[in-house]
Parts: sequence; C-alpha cells; structure tokens
Amino acid sequence: MHVVTLAGGVGGAKLAHGLQRTLGAGELTVIVNTADDLELHGLLVMPDHDTVLYTLAGLADREQGWGLSGDTYVAAAMLERYGAPTWFRLGDGDLATHLLRTARRRGGERLTAVCLGLQDGLGLPSRILPMCEEPVRTQVRSDEGWLEFQDYFVRQHQAPEVREIAFAGIEAAQVTLEVAAALGTAAAVVFAPSNPLVSLGPILAVPGLRAMLGEARDRGVPIVAVSPIVGGRALRGPADRMLASLGHEASALGVARLYADLLDGLVLDREDEALGPAVEALGLHALVTDTIMRDDADRARLARETLDFAADLAAGG
Amino acid sequence: MHVVTLAGGVGGAKLAHGLQRTLGAGELTVIVNTADDLELHGLLVMPDHDTVLYTLAGLADREQGWGLSGDTYVAAAMLERYGAPTWFRLGDGDLATHLLRTARRRGGERLTAVCLGLQDGLGLPSRILPMCEEPVRTQVRSDEGWLEFQDYFVRQHQAPEVREIAFAGIEAAQVTLEVAAALGTAAAVVFAPSNPLVSLGPILAVPGLRAMLGEARDRGVPIVAVSPIVGGRALRGPADRMLASLGHEASALGVARLYADLLDGLVLDREDEALGPAVEALGLHALVTDTIMRDDADRARLARETLDFAADLAAGG
Repeated sequence: MHVVTLAGGVGGAKLAHGLQRTLGAGELTVIVNTADDLELHGLLVMPDHDTVLYTLAGLADREQGWGLSGDTYVAAAMLERYGAPTWFRLGDGDLATHLLRTARRRGGERLTAVCLGLQDGLGLPSRILPMCEEPVRTQVRSDEGWLEFQDYFVRQHQAPEVREIAFAGIEAAQVTLEVAAALGTAAAVVFAPSNPLVSLGPILAVPGLRAMLGEARDRGVPIVAVSPIVGGRALRGPADRMLASLGHEASALGVARLYADLLDGLVLDREDEALGPAVEALGLHALVTDTIMRDDADRARLARETLDFAADLAAGG
Repeated sequence: MHVVTLAGGVGGAKLAHGLQRTLGAGELTVIVNTADDLELHGLLVMPDHDTVLYTLAGLADREQGWGLSGDTYVAAAMLERYGAPTWFRLGDGDLATHLLRTARRRGGERLTAVCLGLQDGLGLPSRILPMCEEPVRTQVRSDEGWLEFQDYFVRQHQAPEVREIAFAGIEAAQVTLEVAAALGTAAAVVFAPSNPLVSLGPILAVPGLRAMLGEARDRGVPIVAVSPIVGGRALRGPADRMLASLGHEASALGVARLYADLLDGLVLDREDEALGPAVEALGLHALVTDTIMRDDADRARLARETLDFAADLAAGG
C-alpha cells in the first residue's frame, strides 16, 4: 500500500503525520511545495519541506505548527545585533537543517537527494519529495505591486489583498524521477488540506504533473482531497481571503471547483455538510466527517477515514 | 598615535583589548592571523579574527577565552542529530557571525571589507585586518603525517608532536592595501603574546610583510614583542611543545631568537628576568614586567607599559 500526498505546510503536515501513523514504514510519500522556499543569509530555507519534516519526525513545535519544538533564537538575536534583516527569524536548531542542506546543495547534490538525506538523518519512516529540482518562487501581486511570497506571508503578515499569483520559474520545472515513480506506484493520492492556490497550486503547476495524476486515475488510482476551508474559513493562513480576492468562492465548494477535473472525491467537514450535493453535482464523491485535527488521534482518524474513502471509490469505480 | 599589533587568538586578543583601552578610538589596528581559518558546514569560520572581534567588543567568553559569552549550542546538537561531524562545535550566536561573513563573501565582497563590516556592526573602536585576502591554511606534520591545523588543534587536542609546519597557499598571498597603509602610518608595532610559529608565523610569512616591518624600523618606528612563553611554558596552547619539537628553545629567549632580526625590544615576564642579558646579547632591548593578564586592569597595564617601552626605544634610537 503506497500512498502519495500533496502537501504544503502546517495543515498538510498534520494530515501527512496522520497518514504516517496509519500506514506502515515506507508506505507514505509526501510531494511538497517548494515555491515558498527562500534564500536567507545565504542559506536555502524550505519552510514547507521542513514543517513536514519536523512534523513527521515528531520534532515540530505543536503550538505554532512550524519550527522545532523548544527551539531558541540566539543566532537571530546576534544577527539583529549585526543589523541584519530579521523579519524571517530562524531558530537555532532549525539553522542546522538549513546549514546542512545549503552545504550539500553547494557540493552539487540534487535537491531531492539532499532532502532525503536530511530525512534519513532524522530516521523518518516516510519520504518527502520536493515537487521539482528547479527553483520556483511564488509571487503575489497586491495593490502595491508584486511581492515575493515570504515578504507577503511573513513580513507583511498576509495583510495585502492578493490580486494575482505567479510561480516564477515554473515553465522550466520538471517532474522528477522520484515524483514520477511515486505517482506511478501510488495506490491512492491524497491532496492534503493545504492552501489550494499557493501550496498545492505550485505542485499542480509543475509541467507534466497533472497529466501524471490523470494517468493514475486512468489506472484506477483514486484521488481525493481534504478541504482546507471549513465553514467558509481557512483553518490557518490566508486561503479564504485569497480565494475571494481572486474571484473564487471561499468555501469547500470553491475548493471542489478548483480541483474538479483532478479528483474522485472531496472530504468535507460536518459544518459544510450542506455543500455535499453541490460538490457531487461537479461529479465528485463527498465524504462528510470531522476534519479539524486538534491532536494526534484526530490526525490518524482523518487519515484513516480519507484512505477508506479512497479505497471505496477505487472499489466502486 | 596609531599602533599596529600582530595577533593570533586568545593571548593576542587580550593584549589588543588592553591596547584598545589605552589608546583612543581609531588608534589601534590589529593584523590578525587567518591561517587557522576553516570551512565548516559551508561556512567560513575565522577563529582568530573572531576571538579578537568578540574580545574587543566586550562579548567574549572570558572563561574559555574564545567564543561569545553565554552562547548556546542548540544548532550543534541538531547537527549532531543529523549525524554531521561536530568536533568543532559552533555556538548559536557565533553562527550568526559565520553566516553573515559567508553570505557577504559569496556575494563577492573582499574578506577585509567583510571583516570591517562585522566590526562596524558591533561598534568596534578598533580595526581588525585579515593578514591577507588569499586563503592560507596552516598544516602540521606529525608522526602520522600532515594534518590540517584545526584537526590537530581542536579535534586531536594538540596531542601529536609537531615535526614540521607549512602554510599552504602562502606563496600567493599578498599584503593588502589596508595592512600596508596601517604599517605605513604606525607609530609603533607590537607583536602580541601569540604563538610565534602558528599565530604570528603565518602573518610574518606573507610575502612582503617582513620588508614592510623593516621599512618601518628604518623610519624609526619601534617594534616590540611580548613573549608568549613564561617560565618555559606557554600560558595557553602548544607553543612550548611546538618550539621544542621543532628544535627551538621553549623559552622567552627562544622567542627572542625567532624574532631577533625584526624587533627592537622584547617584553619578558619577571619570572624570566634572568634571560634578560641573553636577550640583550641578541641586540634587543628587554623590558621585565608582569605579563600575565588575569583581568582588564592587567591587560591595560601591560599594554601601557609595552607602549611606553616602545616609545622609549623610539626616543632613544
């Protein structure tokens, strides 16, 4: 049983953690967004990869959802003393990850190999694959002009209204052999409850990836998503406002419409039960359950229900 | 009054600190050994520069003599968790220095400019100049073969007997404009009580530097050294054993012989008063005083006495 999940940061990491607890060692592959990555003080920082990494390793700060539990900020304080920009604060333990990654990348190793090496170092039973090797960077246009994603997301606290999204470099991106192999052997594909526009959006924009998802469906592999919008609101982050400002409906139905041609089914929260028929009218199956993951038991239960839903769709399809 | 001191790590930093307290802002230039530098996790680490930097900024760990006071090792613990080599442990605050330096170097800035930028960031009233721009690396030959300096010094705790010393890259090194300007305007030059073989040795081996010291003396600029050997022993580090294993006398007299053609005078500890006549027989003047720097007052007093000694030699010469 090999399951592939597409994930961004915190919400995606939680469901991936539930899937890892539900599946056996080696049965989960996470394809992670890299368009949020940035270079900081000469280091390659991969926020989504590392959130998933730390979460799957049991090292994540559960309060804030990202970063290492109990991390300190001594280096950040010293950087500030030197007058360096510190709007994106890196924890001391977290720095070790960026240091090793950057050194290995500069040594000429592929990004995918570097990430797998870090995962091995922490003894991960799952694999996290960057969506591509090539640098892709999300940019958002606000009324003030174009912003780099982390400038918008971290420095400006997602305050600007987003009028347009671009993934710089996406034309040159290619599906990696590892991602292709994962999708080629998947028994199910799960879109984690991540921002559909800026977390899963870049993954789905990698040239060739949508076609591979289509081929998987043609082979009878079920593809399901868990809605990141509950009761019209993103559980975390700006997905709801971003959907609205870009002309989509800020609801699970809006999410269903975005993914409609890719999915067999959508997992909806009980709060959105009334949207079920409209989702089904798009040609998708709907599973209504509790989707808010407050603790490890919630994560594992939602993962199990999602996998069972996918298996039912495969059997029925 | 512009004073130039040649310095390695801890002992040199202490005297430099004393000189800085004695002189006015902008009156002290430290020319620092860079042959102990190393690349670690992709970062350029400059142990001697940073020991002087932190000491002059009042940030040094006074117990161990190097590193930042109160620094933590969270990143080092995480590096260890990843299985990275950790025999050279970098503190979290210290990492900030290496990060900024490495990023600016990769951005194409000259090493001297990068170092001056870090010093400005900490508000230093003195300047610390790398001995040259080119990478020079000290290597020592033990009975086991050649070792990189920090491998010998940190990883092997200076246990191997040193049979030979080499400064790889020294032929390509050049005196920088900044070092030349400092020596050209110096009213006195002080050799700090650093290891004469592996701390001041590389500085003195930069092609052209000895000639510039000679030109300064020809102009009447006094050049004096403070002996790093007291009672036949190095106050810190392996200088005494290194002198002996390389065929020198492990004493202030041995130091005087090494420097004889460069110096006007040598500052000796009271414990070595009996060596005074032998030092003078080499053509050097000798000043006998307390040279062990236990606190800031000791540093300032030794600095003042050394500068007075130099001034007397200039007046008398």
